[in-house]
Amino acid sequence: MSLDDPNHYSIGSFFIALASIFIVGKVLSSIFVRFKQPEVLGELTAGVILGTLGLIPLLGQPGHEVLFLLSEVGVAILLFEIGLETDLNELLSVGLPSLTVAILGVVVPFFLGFYSVYLLGDLGFISSESSLFLTALTIGATLTATSVGITARVLSELNKLKAIESKVILGAAVIDDVIGLIILAIVGGLISSSNLGQDVSIEFSSVAIITGKAFGFLFLAIVIGRLFTTKLFIFIHSLKARGSLLLGALSYTFIFAFLAQFAGLAPIIGAFAAGLLLAKTNQKTLIEDRLKPVADVFIPIFFIMVGAAVDISVFNPFIKENIAVIILALVLFVIAIIGKLVSGLGAFSLKANKLVIGIGMIPRGEVGLIFASMGLATGVLNSSDYSALTVMVMLTTFIAPPLLYHFFKD
Amino acid sequence: MSLDDPNHYSIGSFFIALASIFIVGKVLSSIFVRFKQPEVLGELTAGVILGTLGLIPLLGQPGHEVLFLLSEVGVAILLFEIGLETDLNELLSVGLPSLTVAILGVVVPFFLGFYSVYLLGDLGFISSESSLFLTALTIGATLTATSVGITARVLSELNKLKAIESKVILGAAVIDDVIGLIILAIVGGLISSSNLGQDVSIEFSSVAIITGKAFGFLFLAIVIGRLFTTKLFIFIHSLKARGSLLLGALSYTFIFAFLAQFAGLAPIIGAFAAGLLLAKTNQKTLIEDRLKPVADVFIPIFFIMVGAAVDISVFNPFIKENIAVIILALVLFVIAIIGKLVSGLGAFSLKANKLVIGIGMIPRGEVGLIFASMGLATGVLNSSDYSALTVMVMLTTFIAPPLLYHFFKD
Repeated sequence: MSLDDPNHYSIGSFFIALASIFIVGKVLSSIFVRFKQPEVLGELTAGVILGTLGLIPLLGQPGHEVLFLLSEVGVAILLFEIGLETDLNELLSVGLPSLTVAILGVVVPFFLGFYSVYLLGDLGFISSESSLFLTALTIGATLTATSVGITARVLSELNKLKAIESKVILGAAVIDDVIGLIILAIVGGLISSSNLGQDVSIEFSSVAIITGKAFGFLFLAIVIGRLFTTKLFIFIHSLKARGSLLLGALSYTFIFAFLAQFAGLAPIIGAFAAGLLLAKTNQKTLIEDRLKPVADVFIPIFFIMVGAAVDISVFNPFIKENIAVIILALVLFVIAIIGKLVSGLGAFSLKANKLVIGIGMIPRGEVGLIFASMGLATGVLNSSDYSALTVMVMLTTFIAPPLLYHFFKD
Repeated sequence: MSLDDPNHYSIGSFFIALASIFIVGKVLSSIFVRFKQPEVLGELTAGVILGTLGLIPLLGQPGHEVLFLLSEVGVAILLFEIGLETDLNELLSVGLPSLTVAILGVVVPFFLGFYSVYLLGDLGFISSESSLFLTALTIGATLTATSVGITARVLSELNKLKAIESKVILGAAVIDDVIGLIILAIVGGLISSSNLGQDVSIEFSSVAIITGKAFGFLFLAIVIGRLFTTKLFIFIHSLKARGSLLLGALSYTFIFAFLAQFAGLAPIIGAFAAGLLLAKTNQKTLIEDRLKPVADVFIPIFFIMVGAAVDISVFNPFIKENIAVIILALVLFVIAIIGKLVSGLGAFSLKANKLVIGIGMIPRGEVGLIFASMGLATGVLNSSDYSALTVMVMLTTFIAPPLLYHFFKD
């Protein structure tokens, strides 16, 4: 017997959405695997199809929030799994190359993007309603931040998490998130001071506070976390209730994800830190074992939601307005790729495949879209700039898995 | 870096809610287990605590919908697990005793409830604004429907799913849901025709259609489902993508849950049918194995949400209005228990513990609350009748697990 409430997303629709995600996701993944392509590309494609068919609620539709929250849990679990497989000391040992990769991967795309906007402005592709400087700044910023979810998934699929390239990529992704936070503070400050009609200026104290919070979290998570984690999990493992160890590990992950977000970082950075800490416990293998089916359930939801956010109508070349958007998107896409490929050279001191490191840094995601949304909301970007940026983000997401497969498979 | 939107339940709050559910749930379960009490009672208590502390969003608050949907997934997974452990032929072999148990368990509480309302009306405990007949009808109906989630969980904890008592309870619960559906159609029809100022009458054709749909679902699920399920899961098992078998089984469950709801039944009846069908496949053991951690994550959410719905302020005896509510609730509670204990006698033809069967049928839940809400919305019940009914439902939920533990533990 059912209790129907028209104001809510019905449990029936939710069951069907989950079943569609699982079925279409696995069927397409299986096809991609058969053709020696990344599973995750199958899930992204499934997302595009389900989103286009309306089987997944899009932003603003009832039920979107539920699936979005589950997808965030999914990517947190993914990064937790990756953290469990990663040795913190080895990660710290490639700290310097990771830092160089992260900095190059921010600086090069930023300046390439910044100057391209001036160039494209002259060619008439960018028609800023606000100052071209702010537009260039925002587009440059959008190009900087790597979203590590896609790469992490492919590295895990390829069974390459122990490789030095993977460690540099993961280390650089953490640093990249901190840098992204600082850039957001600066660019956000510049845009809002300009919108208020004030002189364009940066408040260094607030930038310092934001940076301090982020480093504070990372420091506390790793240093304080190490002190009590081992004992905590010996206690949790001694509890008699069914599933205590698994739920303990998940709770630990979720609390770290919350704390990371509280410090202004992405929740996945916290989840990754939780994994790094639990990697040192005696319960690591048991946790991995029990986590696997849970990961199998939640992780596809993330990648399918990423795919579902793609609006394929922008690619219709018969709509005249789309052509300018597509050209701009392709230019930005080329910059996005070159900028991150160059970043791989930051690992010059290591005997590692720099091309693979560069490819691993290519995918952009949420953070880039935060810049783009901010730009749109404040009028610094117009809707075609915004569309071009979202297309660029999508393309980086779809190109990285096959490239990594090609260049990193022995 | 975080994207904050004040209109939405934040991902941070969601992480904290999940962590609270897992941590407080497991800590209390572990304490209950140590004192040889049911784990599920620990989770219900955890729910009461978390709800009272405001750590779980209640009905109408942001985030409630998400946790409610996850809790429905949890109870569907529980009934699927129970179905996997149940042999359909053995279930059908106790079909007749199950039918008698179900019918007695509906008729006895209904008439006890119906006549008590007249008695209590004379004593001044019930002051109906509408006709006493309709009030009596609604309260009687609220007392009829068993909610099998709690019992199923305790039977599983006790490792008693293979016992004949468990089969009778499960069979009776399925039949009970169909009867509940018919009663809802009849009582709902009577109330709405009376509200429209028409003669109180029943449209037998619509009741027949509703009944037909419910039986149609059960028939198709079991008969048609048996034809293709084995082959389908051989195919799914052959897929190469990670987690295909688990996600296939979950999708199958969710589709059956959806179809059951579409036929007017509770989604858990569909999930149970899905489990019964997969119990016959060669992949059963593998599915059980991979489902366990997923069940460990989702199932506690259901029981904690049940606990969180308890409003402990009704039990405060220093508020004068509460006393009449508590007395009425206790009377209804006694009727609820006696009515279902008597139902156990329906299994007279079997060598089974009738007391255990009766106890297993005690918990009321969602379906009872649907009747109560309908009564409140149409003015047939006033708010203290309604409160008393919800207290009765809660009490049956909390009393059944310790009674079952006591009388069914060898």
